[in-house]
Amino acid sequence: MTDPAIDDRRFRERFEEFNRIGATDAGGVNRPSLSDANREARDTLLEWFREAGLEVRIDEMGNLFGRREGRESGADPVLVGSHVDSQYNGGRYDGVVGVLAALEVLEAFADAGLETDRPVEVVSWSNEEGVRFQPDMLGSGVYAGRFDLEYAHGRTDDEGRTFGEELERIGYRGETPCEADGLHSYFELHVEQGPILEDRGVPIGVVEGVFGFSWLDVTVEGQADHAGPTPMDDRADAFVATADVATAVRRLTATGGDDLVGTVGSVDVQPNAINVIPERVEFTVDVRSYDNATVADAVERVRREVSAAADREGVRAEVTEIMRVEADAFDDGCIETIAAAAEEAGHEYVRLKSGAGHDANYLNEIAPTGMIFVPSVDGVSHRESEYTEWEDVVAGADVLCRAVRRAASHQS
Amino acid sequence: MTDPAIDDRRFRERFEEFNRIGATDAGGVNRPSLSDANREARDTLLEWFREAGLEVRIDEMGNLFGRREGRESGADPVLVGSHVDSQYNGGRYDGVVGVLAALEVLEAFADAGLETDRPVEVVSWSNEEGVRFQPDMLGSGVYAGRFDLEYAHGRTDDEGRTFGEELERIGYRGETPCEADGLHSYFELHVEQGPILEDRGVPIGVVEGVFGFSWLDVTVEGQADHAGPTPMDDRADAFVATADVATAVRRLTATGGDDLVGTVGSVDVQPNAINVIPERVEFTVDVRSYDNATVADAVERVRREVSAAADREGVRAEVTEIMRVEADAFDDGCIETIAAAAEEAGHEYVRLKSGAGHDANYLNEIAPTGMIFVPSVDGVSHRESEYTEWEDVVAGADVLCRAVRRAASHQS
Repeated sequence: MTDPAIDDRRFRERFEEFNRIGATDAGGVNRPSLSDANREARDTLLEWFREAGLEVRIDEMGNLFGRREGRESGADPVLVGSHVDSQYNGGRYDGVVGVLAALEVLEAFADAGLETDRPVEVVSWSNEEGVRFQPDMLGSGVYAGRFDLEYAHGRTDDEGRTFGEELERIGYRGETPCEADGLHSYFELHVEQGPILEDRGVPIGVVEGVFGFSWLDVTVEGQADHAGPTPMDDRADAFVATADVATAVRRLTATGGDDLVGTVGSVDVQPNAINVIPERVEFTVDVRSYDNATVADAVERVRREVSAAADREGVRAEVTEIMRVEADAFDDGCIETIAAAAEEAGHEYVRLKSGAGHDANYLNEIAPTGMIFVPSVDGVSHRESEYTEWEDVVAGADVLCRAVRRAASHQS
Repeated sequence: MTDPAIDDRRFRERFEEFNRIGATDAGGVNRPSLSDANREARDTLLEWFREAGLEVRIDEMGNLFGRREGRESGADPVLVGSHVDSQYNGGRYDGVVGVLAALEVLEAFADAGLETDRPVEVVSWSNEEGVRFQPDMLGSGVYAGRFDLEYAHGRTDDEGRTFGEELERIGYRGETPCEADGLHSYFELHVEQGPILEDRGVPIGVVEGVFGFSWLDVTVEGQADHAGPTPMDDRADAFVATADVATAVRRLTATGGDDLVGTVGSVDVQPNAINVIPERVEFTVDVRSYDNATVADAVERVRREVSAAADREGVRAEVTEIMRVEADAFDDGCIETIAAAAEEAGHEYVRLKSGAGHDANYLNEIAPTGMIFVPSVDGVSHRESEYTEWEDVVAGADVLCRAVRRAASHQS
C-alpha cells in the first residue's frame, strides 16, 4: 500500500465540470438551494459518489451522504464535507471545495488501497447559504438537533414556496432520518472568506473556533419636515442620528476588544426623498468577537451610543437584539489532528478564528469537529469574483486527506 | 359701497366641501396632478368661478383662470392664486388655501360692489407638487416661459403616461395659449410649511424672497466583504464614509452661514444586508440659503468633506450637482403692498424668507410678485396631518384681499 494522495488532475477536472452547472457569464455560479441548478449539482455529485463505490444515503432534509466502510463497520464514522448550494450569483469555491475534496479523499484512500479502522462518510449539507430559505445552515442544523424537521420543511422562499415542497419537487426528499446516529468526528475544508491567510502568505488555516456575534435592529423615529423651510434648530432628523451611531460603531471597534468587528450593513430611510428630512430609519448593527464578553460589552456600548445619539437629535430610538450566537471553540483533538496533518504534509499553517459561521458550528455541538481554511484572494466572498489559487485548494485537500486518515484510525 | 370683507362662513364651507374631494381616512387629501380626484377638484373650482360671475379660461397646460373685469378692461390684470393638486396623501391646506382665498377675494369685491381699476384674475396652476410628473411647478413654469409646452406635455409618470395624454383624458387641455400676455402683478397666499410664524406667534408672514439651493447626488463605492471575517483595517465601507459626510453636512450648517440649512434626505445602500459591508451608497445632499454665495460655499465644503471621507475610508466617491437654483427676491413694491395691507388689517406680521419653492418663483421672473404666509402648526407639511388654524387662514385671506385691492387700483 502506498500513502493516499490527492489526484490533482481528477480533482481539478471534477471541480471544473461541477462548476459548469449554473455557471454565470461573470465566472461565478448561480445554484441557490433547491433550484434546478442545485438539483443538477446534486445529481452529478451522487453519480460521482456511486462511481467511487460509496454507499449513498439521502436524508429527510436532502443532505447527501456517501459512505466508505472501515475495518469495523459498526464503529462511529468520520464525517467529512461541506455544501454545494450557492449564493445568488455566488462564487465557485464556497462550499464546493469542501465537498469535492471530501470525495477526493475517499478516492485517494481507495486508490491507495487504504482500509481505515472507522467508516468515512462524505456529506453535502442542504441550504447552507440561507439566501433562498432562512435560516442558513438548515440541513446541518436539523441534523445536529438545533431545528425541528417540521420547522425546516415549513421555511418559505420569497414566492411562498416551502422548503419541503421544493425538496420534493427536485426529488431530494430522502427517507433516512435527519439525525446523527453516532459520529466519531467531523472535518470541513472551506475557503476563508477573509484576507488573513493571503495577508500572511500561508496556504493553510487551522480553525480554532468561530466568532460569536450579535445582530441588532435599530429603529429611529424623527420628524419628516421639508428640507427647506425647517430651521436647523427645529429638526429631528432620523438619519443624522443614524450617521452618529454608525460613526460610533466604527469608533468602538478600535477600543472594544482586540478582535471586535462592527458593521452597519442595512439601512432603510423613509420617506427617502431629496427634500424631506428623514422621518424614520431602520438599520442593523453586526458586532463579532471570539470573546463572548467582548460581544456583550459591544452590544451595551452600541445601546448607549444609540441612546446618546437619539438624545442629541431629539428623536426616539429602539434597539432590538434579533440574534446572539456565542463564540464556539472547535475540538482540541481535531485541531491538533489538522495541525499535525499540515506539518506532515510540509504546508505552512496558522491557527485562526473564523468570523463567519459554517455547518461545522452545528456539527461541533454533537461531535468533535475541526475546520481547515484555504486563502481567499483579496478576502472576496459571496461574489462571482471569489477566487482561490488551485495549488492552495490542493494543499487544503492534502491536509484534509491526512487529517481524516488519522481520525479514521484507532491511533487517533 | 362698503369695504370688501372675507365672508368667513362661505369661505369655510367651500374649503370643507372642496376637501371632501379625494379625502383620506387620516384627514388629508389625495388629489395628485391629473388624477380623477384632481379632475373633480377642477370641475368644482370652475363651477364656483362661474357662479361668482368670473370669465373662465383654460390654457394648454390646464391652468385655470377666472377673470373679473376692472374699470379699464385693457389694463394688465392682477393675478392671484396657487394650486389644487396635492401630494400623494397630502394635506388639506397646501395650495388650496391660496386658490380658494383668491376666489373669496373676488367674491368679496363683488359683494361690496367694488369696481377695481385693473382686471383681477384668480388662477389655479397645474402640477405644482411634482410628485406624479416632474419637475414641480410645471404649469407656472410654462406660463413664465421657463419650459417649452412640448417638453411639459411629454413629461411621464411612473406608468409611462404623459402629462399631455392625461391632461386630455381628464378633459383639461384648454385652448388658451399658456403664456403671460401682460401682467400687472402676482399675489399668492400659502401655508408656510415651516415653523417660524408659529414659533413667533404671528399670523402673517410677508415673504421677502425664496432661498436658493443646490441638490447634490453622491455615489460612494467601497467593497462588499463579509461583515465577520473581514478585519477592521481591511475594510472599504461605503456607509461609514456616508455617515462621515452626513455628520459633516450637519456640522457645516453651524458655521457655513446664518441661514444655511443642509439635509441628507435620500440614502440607498447596496447590497443592504445585515452581514455584508456596504459596497455602494448613493445619497443626496440638499443645501439652502437666501445668500447665493453661502450656497456656493456650502457646495464646495460638501465636496471637500466627501473627498476627505472617501480618503479616510479608502473608497471612491463622486459628487454630481443635479440642480442649482439661485435665491430669488420678490418685488419690493409687492412686499410693501402686503405689509401695508397687514398693517391696515391690524394683523401682526413678520418679514421672512421661504425655504421652499412656489409657483410665485416663476411668476416673479415675469411680473412683480409677492407672497403671504400663514402659520403651519408644528411646521408640518406634505402630510395628512398638515394643519393651520382657521382664523389664521382667514387673516391671510384678509391681507390678500386688501393687498389685491391696492394692487388693482391705479394708486398702487
